Amino acid sequence: MRMAELSAESGVPVATVKYYLREGLLPAGERTSPNQARYSAAHVQRLKLIRALTDVGGLSLASVGAVLAAIDGDETPYEVMGVVQHELAGDLPDVPEDPSDEAFELLAAALRRHGWHELKRGPAVQDMIATMVTVRELGHDRLLDQLEAYVRLALSVAEADMETVKGLGSVDRIIEAGVVGTVLGDRLFAGLRHLAQEMLSRELLSARPS
Amino acid sequence: MRMAELSAESGVPVATVKYYLREGLLPAGERTSPNQARYSAAHVQRLKLIRALTDVGGLSLASVGAVLAAIDGDETPYEVMGVVQHELAGDLPDVPEDPSDEAFELLAAALRRHGWHELKRGPAVQDMIATMVTVRELGHDRLLDQLEAYVRLALSVAEADMETVKGLGSVDRIIEAGVVGTVLGDRLFAGLRHLAQEMLSRELLSARPS
Repeated sequence: MRMAELSAESGVPVATVKYYLREGLLPAGERTSPNQARYSAAHVQRLKLIRALTDVGGLSLASVGAVLAAIDGDETPYEVMGVVQHELAGDLPDVPEDPSDEAFELLAAALRRHGWHELKRGPAVQDMIATMVTVRELGHDRLLDQLEAYVRLALSVAEADMETVKGLGSVDRIIEAGVVGTVLGDRLFAGLRHLAQEMLSRELLSARPS
Repeated sequence: MRMAELSAESGVPVATVKYYLREGLLPAGERTSPNQARYSAAHVQRLKLIRALTDVGGLSLASVGAVLAAIDGDETPYEVMGVVQHELAGDLPDVPEDPSDEAFELLAAALRRHGWHELKRGPAVQDMIATMVTVRELGHDRLLDQLEAYVRLALSVAEADMETVKGLGSVDRIIEAGVVGTVLGDRLFAGLRHLAQEMLSRELLSARPS
């Protein structure tokens, strides 16, 4: 298909498509004349993915670029997920040394009780430690008292996540499903959690004594 | 305490504290002379909260301002949570009419089966619908096949969330715990989910046929 059709099919304006081409987010089409190129269904899908990750997933174009480079490279699906999680974590505040170790131990202990024995300080872990240290500094330790429950439930959510990629035919499709499931799946689950909080808290939290 | 102590105690630079004062994010101190003011422990806590919501929670200063205005206003804790969720949802992409209704019905049905009968189109719901429509457009419907499981688990997570606010003495404290629990709690749970995905997927996803 031509550029105009690519734009119509994907819902992305021509100027934006050209911008993505220049930035290398979208692979070049097959050149058919000096001024024209032909694009495929893969280009449409790639454009939809870029918009999903930016508009709904909230990733920057730089982050999307890093994720797409991993998707297109030789990385295993597992490594691609690492890149996605790194980009989702964003820039982390500096974690002070001592309390961070305490938080790390708390997290490691909760995970060990659920059969996860080798906790390494990757981006996801550093992100959680920064969050835990901040929660403690604010004096809301009761949130951390629920860590055990959160670990157990996160494992169940991840089991449901795995169902979405099992048995997918191609590795490329598994990778894309993993990326979409991580970025949009986080957003979806956070929305459901908010709804559930709303349902459970309506009575509990509706009173405000004057 | 004086400005210098306030800065030292909270870990926020003096220039930043002054900026927050000018922007109305931090209430003015008690004036003790034309050039000096006295600040309290409440100011320290407020500064820590601002930094937690921006640095770790990823909210913009404008969003933090909206959340703080709700905290300081006459809103019930329930209404404050609505403001927080609205700010977390961010700017939503436009959802096309028809598929959005289909997604709404899918969501409403899954929630009904878990006893939640009155789904209204608030910001959290619109956010989820936009996410669901995007997932479907990308052809990753298997993520939506897990909606029922996600609803069930989100309810369990929200039950754990409720434990963190139950029995807190003052309404102000309940509100702050709710805000921290929502903004940082989302981040914490997403981190745990990523770790769990990592644990479950290491073997499944480590192969990449060439």
